[in-house]
Amino acid sequence: MITINCSPEVDISRVHEALSDIRKDAMSGWVDLPCRVNMEELSRIKSAADKIIDESEVLVCIGIGGSYLGHRAIIEALRPASNIEIVYAGNSLSRRELDRAIAQVGDRDFSINIISKSGTTLEPAIAFETFKKLLFEKYGASEAAKRIYATTDAAHGALHDEAVKNGYTRFIVPDNIGGRYSVLTPVGLLPLAVAGVDIDALLAGAAEEATSFSDAMKHDPRTSAAVNYAYMRYTLGNKGYDTEVFASFEPATAYFNEWLKQLFGESEGKGQQGVLPTSVIYSTDLHSLGQFMQDGRRNLWETIIDYPTDDLNAKVVAAVKKAHPLGGIPVLVLGVPSYDERGFGQLVYFFEIACALSARLYGVNPFDQPGVEAYKTELKKLLA
Amino acid sequence: MITINCSPEVDISRVHEALSDIRKDAMSGWVDLPCRVNMEELSRIKSAADKIIDESEVLVCIGIGGSYLGHRAIIEALRPASNIEIVYAGNSLSRRELDRAIAQVGDRDFSINIISKSGTTLEPAIAFETFKKLLFEKYGASEAAKRIYATTDAAHGALHDEAVKNGYTRFIVPDNIGGRYSVLTPVGLLPLAVAGVDIDALLAGAAEEATSFSDAMKHDPRTSAAVNYAYMRYTLGNKGYDTEVFASFEPATAYFNEWLKQLFGESEGKGQQGVLPTSVIYSTDLHSLGQFMQDGRRNLWETIIDYPTDDLNAKVVAAVKKAHPLGGIPVLVLGVPSYDERGFGQLVYFFEIACALSARLYGVNPFDQPGVEAYKTELKKLLA
Repeated sequence: MITINCSPEVDISRVHEALSDIRKDAMSGWVDLPCRVNMEELSRIKSAADKIIDESEVLVCIGIGGSYLGHRAIIEALRPASNIEIVYAGNSLSRRELDRAIAQVGDRDFSINIISKSGTTLEPAIAFETFKKLLFEKYGASEAAKRIYATTDAAHGALHDEAVKNGYTRFIVPDNIGGRYSVLTPVGLLPLAVAGVDIDALLAGAAEEATSFSDAMKHDPRTSAAVNYAYMRYTLGNKGYDTEVFASFEPATAYFNEWLKQLFGESEGKGQQGVLPTSVIYSTDLHSLGQFMQDGRRNLWETIIDYPTDDLNAKVVAAVKKAHPLGGIPVLVLGVPSYDERGFGQLVYFFEIACALSARLYGVNPFDQPGVEAYKTELKKLLA
Repeated sequence: MITINCSPEVDISRVHEALSDIRKDAMSGWVDLPCRVNMEELSRIKSAADKIIDESEVLVCIGIGGSYLGHRAIIEALRPASNIEIVYAGNSLSRRELDRAIAQVGDRDFSINIISKSGTTLEPAIAFETFKKLLFEKYGASEAAKRIYATTDAAHGALHDEAVKNGYTRFIVPDNIGGRYSVLTPVGLLPLAVAGVDIDALLAGAAEEATSFSDAMKHDPRTSAAVNYAYMRYTLGNKGYDTEVFASFEPATAYFNEWLKQLFGESEGKGQQGVLPTSVIYSTDLHSLGQFMQDGRRNLWETIIDYPTDDLNAKVVAAVKKAHPLGGIPVLVLGVPSYDERGFGQLVYFFEIACALSARLYGVNPFDQPGVEAYKTELKKLLA
């Protein structure tokens, strides 16, 4: 279980109310997900992963935002030994970046996992067209279709229809789980399994954290680290601390910080309010933004994600834990029991539930993203 | 030349005063550097780079903070075709990360560029010990010494002394240029040349920008984009906009954003003030932090680094330029003439001079970093 170094004065009834609002929401499918794993679907994911690994040297993983960040975060952090390389595409519109992804694949055998609920989001749609063309040229239509894995809506949408028509292997993006809460669905699980991540252990870690949270809510919410963290964020935000700096001492977790920034930024940053999520990687950034942390403007707080690490690195963690509060910034420390699948499973659930609670405490809807939709609409207009 | 989309009301005498303060400072060696290139040193750098490329498949580049970020930023952005791979080490204390760097080198032929003014900064010192041992085991003492390139103080320090004693090839970190302003010195130029970056074109771009700035200061500072940018930052900061978001639409420039965060964070973040520098990469982050940018708390402004890009990506740039000001956030747009060595040379000088001016306008010393020194001292105490 994730731990925290603080116990704010929690208004228990407000927390119960926040959780009740979350559970009532149509997009709350992720809350009980780790404890209700669909074993048949999990088995299909593993079989597909085995087939991809057998047939390919590269998996081109196409998706953006919530269809991209979660699995990449965990793969980069754990970098399991694997005979297959994951190449990410479709997460920007830069032609330079697309050309780079194509060059990275080279003439190796590859398969495609296209992850898109609607199939019409521009960035992945363009990358998919490009790589599909390469796949068809390389293998011919029939064999190419067998190398395409579409993670998309169960019943509707452009990608769904194309997948059915051409017989791509399909996985479902659940209707009741939004992108940024979807890493433990097929959205994340298929690329994770292909990359060699032990998805059973990941789900088990998430289930432990979910059970621990649920038990605490039944008995005493103040014993839940997620509740304390959510409440502390809310309290700090109300005191004028308007920027949160996620700090990690393991460079390989840089993408996990990116996932956090999406989770919190998109969940809370609306109605012209919200805590701005930013991140640092120590000790690299102690030689850069460290100056600002130690001695700059005092409206930020630091949330250290304290992964178990080697002795020397642990000394830096200790130095920062000591120095930064002296510099006048609040420091929250989240203890992670293990640097492995189980630990990241715990972290994922911890942050998801804490983020939803925190957003509700702030009085915003944790599950919509009107600003992102506005951008998508504006872009489609410009391209029409 | 870099361009900007705004012309604030500049107090010309204050700008002249700020520049005069900068020039008087002992650490202002970078101001005229691009126009006074030491051709003999440049030639030594190129010869060393050729030798490294001839003898090695990997250059292990060891440094942290200002001895690391600048060259990595430009190498990642340009990724020139090259027969040699750069492996970065010594920028954290994570053992996991060091093991990963060792595995990345594998059994390939390698050389080392250790970059450290003092030679005693812990992170690079530990990585250097580790890789030096591997080098000695692989090649024997005499050949190993010929594969070590030390970029360090001209006359003093642990690394200087070791380099002289063992006959390493030496390059100088100038006394009058601090780490975060040092990318156009041997600190950055040697790894850049090894990676295949055209360092003549890079320096020429910087020299163009320096000349353009200097001409504008002589005639009318209000015609200088760097002056307008510095003044705009200062004006926005005083109006309560306390966070700057550097936005780029080219994913390969993510490390250039990191360089910017160090440059501005370390130069301005002191005396419990300063604008917090953060960054986003679009369109990836339009599907994550984009929500916050469009609709979150309104104390931030966005500085778009507008690299020339393909037509489609340019449409996203246009969409953002249109949408974000409507969302109520000020948007500065910096135009970059070309996505190549020359363009990045211009950008480097532009940001260095603008940052120093901006810090001076805010009344802080752009060249010290007391908070970082405090951390280094604290860490050494803990390890003693």
